[in-house]
Amino acid sequence: MKLIETRSAPNPRRVRIFLAEKGISVPCEEVDLMTGVLATQPYATLNPMRRVPMLVLEDGTVIAETVAICRYFEELQPAPPLFGDGPVERALVEMWNRRIEFGLLGAIAHAFRHLNPRMAHLEVPQIAAWGEANKPKALEMLSLLDARLSETRYLAGDNFSIADITAMVAIDFMKPARITIPEGLAHIARWRAEVTARPSATA
Amino acid sequence: MKLIETRSAPNPRRVRIFLAEKGISVPCEEVDLMTGVLATQPYATLNPMRRVPMLVLEDGTVIAETVAICRYFEELQPAPPLFGDGPVERALVEMWNRRIEFGLLGAIAHAFRHLNPRMAHLEVPQIAAWGEANKPKALEMLSLLDARLSETRYLAGDNFSIADITAMVAIDFMKPARITIPEGLAHIARWRAEVTARPSATA
Repeated sequence: MKLIETRSAPNPRRVRIFLAEKGISVPCEEVDLMTGVLATQPYATLNPMRRVPMLVLEDGTVIAETVAICRYFEELQPAPPLFGDGPVERALVEMWNRRIEFGLLGAIAHAFRHLNPRMAHLEVPQIAAWGEANKPKALEMLSLLDARLSETRYLAGDNFSIADITAMVAIDFMKPARITIPEGLAHIARWRAEVTARPSATA
Repeated sequence: MKLIETRSAPNPRRVRIFLAEKGISVPCEEVDLMTGVLATQPYATLNPMRRVPMLVLEDGTVIAETVAICRYFEELQPAPPLFGDGPVERALVEMWNRRIEFGLLGAIAHAFRHLNPRMAHLEVPQIAAWGEANKPKALEMLSLLDARLSETRYLAGDNFSIADITAMVAIDFMKPARITIPEGLAHIARWRAEVTARPSATA
């Protein structure tokens, strides 16, 4: 088994943090996605979406998509549960993880990909107006998450989950995307201090 | 328990088809999202993302996000499995469902929301260039799915899954988004005839 990833990119980092929380070690192969190598062989066949991370199993089966890779390891090793425990908690983890993926990480990624000249060969066409439109969307979501964290310890409730991993990685990605975190989000600050102190955060 | 939905919108339709495949009946409350009602109470509190569908449980817990709602019912009633069976199949269903959500349904939704004048009050700002840019992205993904379906009966493999539901709903949504399905996608056509013949397709 091996994990093909790009160390500096946000989605591979989600998988590394997830694996560190589980205490699972997987051999990694680093590729530099900025060179366009994902459009060449063998990567283009392994994952026609041309994205990292991708997990290649012993029998050659490829699992791509960050959350699919995480779910595979959750199935192999359920403890500690990072997708929730029981029907309602599992549904709420899925809900919060998706809200954060679409509303925060997605918005930040669009701002990054459509405004950074170095991404011009990977994001075709780059549309600056769309990049700019995503900055307030990301900030609106951040404000909603601050309100959520005024009520709960972690984003999906009482327990640390993949939703926290997605949000932590997304917020750290605001810096390269050149979106400033507003002052006054006290609950985000409290939660962020807590989750970034976990050993997994540097994985 | 009740499902708050808008009958004509694609995401609620995914949930209805999922429930029909499971043989589960849930009372529905129809809201017309075009009126902006989701920004008013009680809906804005039930789901601050202002989207349908949302599922309200007996104890008041709200599960929003299409896939979170479907996963809740999969947990309550595992048969027939629509998220896959076993670690690898579950990961592959997650992978294909996400590829289709981001690459096909998402692209079609962006084209619809950014180009349809009736969506101007819900998609702020509308950016026509971004809407247009998504049309070829949707067609590229459709072509990739056609290649996939030259090898497998269903999108995630041998068994019908939520990935097929997402793709069926996405392809039907191409018409209101004014994206023409190209000629010559024989495998998509074979698969589409099969999945639209299922009783759930009209749910």
